[in-house]
Amino acid sequence: MNIIDIINKTKRAVPLSDEEISYVVSGYTNGDIPDYQMSAWLMAVCLNGLNEHETVALTKAMRDSGDILDMSCINGITADKHSTGGVGDKTSFIIGPAAAACGVYVPKMSGKGLGHTGGTIDKLESISGYRTELPFEEFAGIVNKTGFSIISQSGTLCPADKKIYALRNATGTVDSIPLICASIMSKKLALNADILLLDVKCGSGAFMKTNLEARKLGDLMERVGDAAGKKCRAIVTDMDSPLGSCIGNALEVKEAIELLQGKVKGRLYDVCIELTANLLELAGKGTFGECQRMAEEAISSGRALAVLKETIELHGGDGSICDDVSLLPQPRFRHEIRASRDVEIVSVNAEELGMASLLLGAGRIQKDDAIDPTAGIVLEFEVGDKISMDAPLMTLYSTVCSDFSEAAVRAYNAITFRDLTASALT
Amino acid sequence: MNIIDIINKTKRAVPLSDEEISYVVSGYTNGDIPDYQMSAWLMAVCLNGLNEHETVALTKAMRDSGDILDMSCINGITADKHSTGGVGDKTSFIIGPAAAACGVYVPKMSGKGLGHTGGTIDKLESISGYRTELPFEEFAGIVNKTGFSIISQSGTLCPADKKIYALRNATGTVDSIPLICASIMSKKLALNADILLLDVKCGSGAFMKTNLEARKLGDLMERVGDAAGKKCRAIVTDMDSPLGSCIGNALEVKEAIELLQGKVKGRLYDVCIELTANLLELAGKGTFGECQRMAEEAISSGRALAVLKETIELHGGDGSICDDVSLLPQPRFRHEIRASRDVEIVSVNAEELGMASLLLGAGRIQKDDAIDPTAGIVLEFEVGDKISMDAPLMTLYSTVCSDFSEAAVRAYNAITFRDLTASALT
Repeated sequence: MNIIDIINKTKRAVPLSDEEISYVVSGYTNGDIPDYQMSAWLMAVCLNGLNEHETVALTKAMRDSGDILDMSCINGITADKHSTGGVGDKTSFIIGPAAAACGVYVPKMSGKGLGHTGGTIDKLESISGYRTELPFEEFAGIVNKTGFSIISQSGTLCPADKKIYALRNATGTVDSIPLICASIMSKKLALNADILLLDVKCGSGAFMKTNLEARKLGDLMERVGDAAGKKCRAIVTDMDSPLGSCIGNALEVKEAIELLQGKVKGRLYDVCIELTANLLELAGKGTFGECQRMAEEAISSGRALAVLKETIELHGGDGSICDDVSLLPQPRFRHEIRASRDVEIVSVNAEELGMASLLLGAGRIQKDDAIDPTAGIVLEFEVGDKISMDAPLMTLYSTVCSDFSEAAVRAYNAITFRDLTASALT
Repeated sequence: MNIIDIINKTKRAVPLSDEEISYVVSGYTNGDIPDYQMSAWLMAVCLNGLNEHETVALTKAMRDSGDILDMSCINGITADKHSTGGVGDKTSFIIGPAAAACGVYVPKMSGKGLGHTGGTIDKLESISGYRTELPFEEFAGIVNKTGFSIISQSGTLCPADKKIYALRNATGTVDSIPLICASIMSKKLALNADILLLDVKCGSGAFMKTNLEARKLGDLMERVGDAAGKKCRAIVTDMDSPLGSCIGNALEVKEAIELLQGKVKGRLYDVCIELTANLLELAGKGTFGECQRMAEEAISSGRALAVLKETIELHGGDGSICDDVSLLPQPRFRHEIRASRDVEIVSVNAEELGMASLLLGAGRIQKDDAIDPTAGIVLEFEVGDKISMDAPLMTLYSTVCSDFSEAAVRAYNAITFRDLTASALT
C-alpha cells in the first residue's frame, strides 16, 4: 500500500478498503505518513466525503490506535453522553447525576476546550480541589459508588484522534461530517460504555448550523455506533440561542447546581429532562414517558444533586458549592448592560455571545492559553421577553479583563431587538 | 491574511484575491507556510479548481518568486516552445534548429525528467561534452550566433514552482489543470521570450488522456500567456502512440538527427513541421502555408541540421554526431522481439512502452536516480502495419540492465495485435 495511491483514490471518490484506512491511521499515528500527505488526504475527505463503510473503518482504526477501556468492573449498565458542543452547554453536570440517581452508571471522559468557553474539564477545574486526572481504578471506583464521574480523557485513548485533530485544526479540514463522526465516535468507542447518547447541537451557536447537517451527523454516528455493537441514539437539540442564562466556566457550574437545586426551569431544564429520559429509555428503565418522570423526580427530590456533591467530594473537590454556589470563584470585575429603551428580544446569536465571553477570558484561542474561571456572561432574559427601558439585559464578568468595552459591544450586538417605544411604532 | 482562511475559501470555492494568492506563493516559498497547510490548499485546488483570474494571479506570483530573464540582448524576435511531454517526444531538437534556420531566435531552458525517459536535458547529456549549465551571457551569445540553444533551467527561475511541484508530487495533487498551467507558464514567463508555442500532448502516452482535457489546458495556457503580454498559441498533438520509432535518451537524439538529415518522415516529421510552422507564423514570418514550406525547406536543405551541429559544438559537445549518429553512446545489450505469427498492429499503448523503457534504465523514479543514456526501445512498425511471422517488431537496448524479460513482456503487451493467420480467421 502506498499513501499517494490512497490520496488519489479519495481524490477521485473511489472508496478505500478497510486495510487502506487502517494503513492511513496507523501510518500517520506512528509517523510513517508525514503531515503534508495526511492533510492532503483530509482535504480530499472534506470535499469528497467518505461513505458509511469507510467512516466505520476510520472510526474503528482510530479507536484501535490506543487503549480500549474495560468497563466490566462497573457494577451495572454503563452509559455515556456526548454533546457536540455549543454556547452555555452545561448538560453533562446535570444529565450524568440525574441518570446515576436512576440507576445507570455514567463514566465520562472529557476534554479541554478551544473556543468561546472552556470544555467540560475546564468547567470542572473551576471547582476548588477537583482532580480531573485519576487512575482508571479510582475513576471506576467513584462510578461504582455514586454512579457518576467525569475525568480528563486519558492520553492513552485514541492517540490517532489527538494527532489528526490537531492537523485538521491547522489545515482548514475540521468541517467534514465523516471526520467529525470518526473523531467523536472513536473516543466514545474507546471509552466503551454500553450505551451512547449523542446530543447533536444545531444552530448559530453550534458547529452544525442547519437541522439537515445535524441530523446527517447524528444518523451517521448512530450507524457507526451500531456497527461497533453499541446501543446508540442521536438527538438533535437547538443551539440557536445559548442553553440557559449562564456562559462561562464557574458560571455554568453554578447554573447546573441551581438547576439540580430545583431553581432553574425553561429550555435548559427541558433539554436535560429530554436527554436523561432518552438515556434511561436506552438503558431499559421504562417507556419514554416513565423515564421522563424518573428524570424529573431525580432532580426534584434532590437525589441528582446529592450524586453530584458526593462525586465532587470523591474527586477531592469542595462539595459545599452544591449547597452554596457563592463558594465558587468570584469575578473581580462586572459590567451590567441595561435596555436603552423598551424592547422585545427577537433573537440571540449564540456564537457572538460566545465570542464576547472569549474576549472576557472564558475561553482559549491557542491550546495553552490560560482560562479565567470567573469570566463570562449572565443573560437576564429569554428570547421573546419584553424588557423595559433601564431594566438589566445581561451582566458581563471577568477577573483578567478590566476593559469590557469590546466584549460589551459584541454581546449587545448579538441580540436582535424590536423597539417597543411609541416613537418606533409611528 | 491567514492561510487557514485562504484554505477555507478555496475549499468552499470562494475565489481568492490576487493578494491572497501572492501571500500563499510567497509564504510557502519563504517557509512561513508549512508543507501541511500548502498541501491541503493544493488538494482543495485539485478538487474545486481555480478560476482563470486566480490562475493568472498564481502564475504571475510563481513567476515573480525568482528572476525574470532579460531577453533584450537577443538580436531579434525570441520564441519558446514547450511540450507537456510524452513518450518519444524529441521535437525540441528539431523545431528549435528549424525555426532558427528561418530567422527566429529560440532560447530554451529545460529540466531533467522523472518517469519513462529522461527530460530534454538528460537527452542532451547523452551527447559527449555538451554543457547543459551555462551562464546566461554565454547562453544568449550562442542564441545570437546560431539562433538556438538549450540549457538546464536556472535555479534562480521560479523557485516557487520547484518547491510546489515537489510537494504536489508527494501529495497526489499533480493532476489539476490550473496547477499544471501555472507550473508551466510561470517558468515560460520567467524565461520571457516574445512568443510561446505550447504543444499539449494528448493520449495514452501523455498526462492529458482526452482531447477535451488537453484543449482545456491549452486554452487556459493561451489566456494566461495573453494576460501576461505574450504572443501565445497552444496546439494539441496526438500522443496515443509514441512519437517516432525511438524511445530513450541517445536513441531520441539519434532519431532527431536522422530527421534533420532528411531520413525520417511519417508522423514525427509531420508534427515537427506543424509546430515549426505555427511558431514561424506567430513570429510574423508569413501565412501558415508559407511557414510550412519554410520549415520543410529548412530541413530538406540541411540548414536546420547545421544549426544543431554548430549549437552542440558551441556547447562543447561532439558535433560530429550530426554527421555520424553511431558516435552517440552505444548499448551493451540488445534484445529483439519478433512477431510470433502474421499480425496487424491495431494500437500501441505509449505509456506502457514508456514503462518498459524505464525498466531498461532510460528513465528515473527518484530524482537522483542515474539514467542509462543507451537504454530504450526502437519500434519497427507504425500503427496499422501488417507484420509477417518472424519479422522484427521492436528492439530493446540497455547497458545497465542485462535481464530483458520483464521489460520485454511489458513492451510486447503494450501492443494490440489482430491475428492474420488462417486459423485465427476461422
